Amino acid sequence: MSLEHYFIIDSTLREGEQFVNAFFTPEQKVEIAQMLDAFGVEYIEVTTPLASPQSEKDCRMLARLGLRAKVLTHVRCNLEDAKRAVDTGVQGVDLVIGTSSKLRQFSHHLTIDEIIDRAQEVLAFLSTQGVEMRFSTEDSLRSDPQDLFRIYEAVDQMGVHRVGIADTIGIGTPHQIYALVSALRQRIRADIEFHGHNDTGCAIANAYAALEAGATHVDTSVLGIGERNGITPLGGLIARLYGTSPQLVAKYNLPLLVHLDRRVAEIVGVDIPFNNYITGFAAFTHKAGIHAKAVLNDPSTYEVLRPEDFGLTRYIHVAHRLTGWNAIR
Amino acid sequence: MSLEHYFIIDSTLREGEQFVNAFFTPEQKVEIAQMLDAFGVEYIEVTTPLASPQSEKDCRMLARLGLRAKVLTHVRCNLEDAKRAVDTGVQGVDLVIGTSSKLRQFSHHLTIDEIIDRAQEVLAFLSTQGVEMRFSTEDSLRSDPQDLFRIYEAVDQMGVHRVGIADTIGIGTPHQIYALVSALRQRIRADIEFHGHNDTGCAIANAYAALEAGATHVDTSVLGIGERNGITPLGGLIARLYGTSPQLVAKYNLPLLVHLDRRVAEIVGVDIPFNNYITGFAAFTHKAGIHAKAVLNDPSTYEVLRPEDFGLTRYIHVAHRLTGWNAIR
Ligand SMILES: O=C(O)CCC(=O)C(=O)O
Ligand SMILES: O=C(O)CCC(=O)C(=O)O
Ligand SMILES: [Cu+2]
Ligand SMILES: [Cu+2]
Repeated sequence: MSLEHYFIIDSTLREGEQFVNAFFTPEQKVEIAQMLDAFGVEYIEVTTPLASPQSEKDCRMLARLGLRAKVLTHVRCNLEDAKRAVDTGVQGVDLVIGTSSKLRQFSHHLTIDEIIDRAQEVLAFLSTQGVEMRFSTEDSLRSDPQDLFRIYEAVDQMGVHRVGIADTIGIGTPHQIYALVSALRQRIRADIEFHGHNDTGCAIANAYAALEAGATHVDTSVLGIGERNGITPLGGLIARLYGTSPQLVAKYNLPLLVHLDRRVAEIVGVDIPFNNYITGFAAFTHKAGIHAKAVLNDPSTYEVLRPEDFGLTRYIHVAHRLTGWNAIR
Repeated sequence: MSLEHYFIIDSTLREGEQFVNAFFTPEQKVEIAQMLDAFGVEYIEVTTPLASPQSEKDCRMLARLGLRAKVLTHVRCNLEDAKRAVDTGVQGVDLVIGTSSKLRQFSHHLTIDEIIDRAQEVLAFLSTQGVEMRFSTEDSLRSDPQDLFRIYEAVDQMGVHRVGIADTIGIGTPHQIYALVSALRQRIRADIEFHGHNDTGCAIANAYAALEAGATHVDTSVLGIGERNGITPLGGLIARLYGTSPQLVAKYNLPLLVHLDRRVAEIVGVDIPFNNYITGFAAFTHKAGIHAKAVLNDPSTYEVLRPEDFGLTRYIHVAHRLTGWNAIR
């Protein structure tokens, strides 16, 4: 278990930029990065400088903001991309390459041996550049585990700091993630990162299972925004870890979460889901008579998250609907 | 695993009525019950007749609608409630009693032995009434497992058809649920139901873990509505099972899901979350250039759920934002 020693890589400014509604201005990127930094995430991942000249400028700017969080950029695993990444001044480079047969066929036609050669070439370069190096396989869950282990062992020998497992299509279950991360944990020395999409509703549970199995880093985004319905939401991961023990998230500035969720929702033009973790309007409402009565007496009867720890308030339905609601601290 | 042989108990008309914004009229209850029935859920759980005279009338009416789904009502485990439940003509009675020390102290002050006596008395009555009998413990995850097993074994001997495990405060993890259900599966003959709240983001994964461990029934509600941020959403459970194999959900009328989500959202006055499973507006959008290109070529490269199976359409970002989006079937 690395529950006591884990790191959040927030990817709102990379995966989140792939959300259908997200088109961040440079000013918005700075604002989001600063809020994430104030919240306390340890890493901020930003879009590759190869996406566009503007992305390159923004990446440079974010890398030089002087945040406490390390700024990473996310590029394809090839020398040209890696050089462009380093050139922006980021503190770390996240390499990714597709390893499932579907993505290999579609995107690069490389064999596993060729992937390993490519990775070694790029890591050899990065090792001389004083940046944190991560190597990840896209669509890991549909890749052959034996292929994955060969690749990860090879990059581990190259001194990579971290390897990533990506559930790109959101198909994994907690059992599968636990098994894969545990097996990998036995084989390599590097840290292990998990990136999980939420198409089938397991992104939070999968990230948690990865940590239980020895992963050290989890990718999140604010409200979970990303391709399709997104990835592990920052607030949802916080809720899960807090549910296990509030101590696990004591290192973060929890009352900032609601401001992050609200601001990012506003920027990308969505409403915070009514049932969002912690910050949805329903999160701290108690309606049934027996619940309301019990919570008035002792909130922990029906509450695992204490709203006051997040700068929020609970609402207890005290009577008939016409009487309305009471906010109770 | 009971993945190949499981049943959905939809509780939109019971747990869902405990959602802060839900105040269903009798007509709305009929409409929701009929839509759920057409979708194909095997059970529909409705609010106890003891809640109010109107609830009693509605329960009677729903029990006599002639649905294919069995109609259940949900009452406290005592003789008076059980009699009132049977009297409405429902096909099954779901009994519940708090077993964690927190809820025992707060709500009924019974010892475990007294709970067993009470359960036996009520089940002895129900056995003569020709209804399906279920016995569940509230706040099971904070209850002593040894207490739970004693209680479940006692009700199993009384011939209860089904026992329920309830993660009332949404604190359980897939590992914990798997372990608890597996242990219970070894000890009793009755079917096992799982009811899980979503405060810490694991309600779908927990329901799935319960099925992997031998549970046979899962509680859902449309959009997950319920106390606080709710329970396992019907659409989210469907997405998870479909992600494992579309065959697992072939028994349901999948294109009705979007109508259920939309109609219930409208009735309770919320928007479908932008990132909702299957029916959120972002669910089938593909934005990053490489994703868009790959999906145009073969959707399965970046899609685990086929929108057409749900009567929906995918959207692929074909160019610059000003060019807009193309709907591609
Ligand atoms: O680099 C990674 O680990 C993840 C890339 C990505 O967004 C994905 O595969 O979903
Ligand atoms: O009867 C049950 O199993 C569940 C009752 C309930 O809604 C809960 O405990 O959250
Ligand atoms: Cu991703
Ligand atoms: Cu409940």
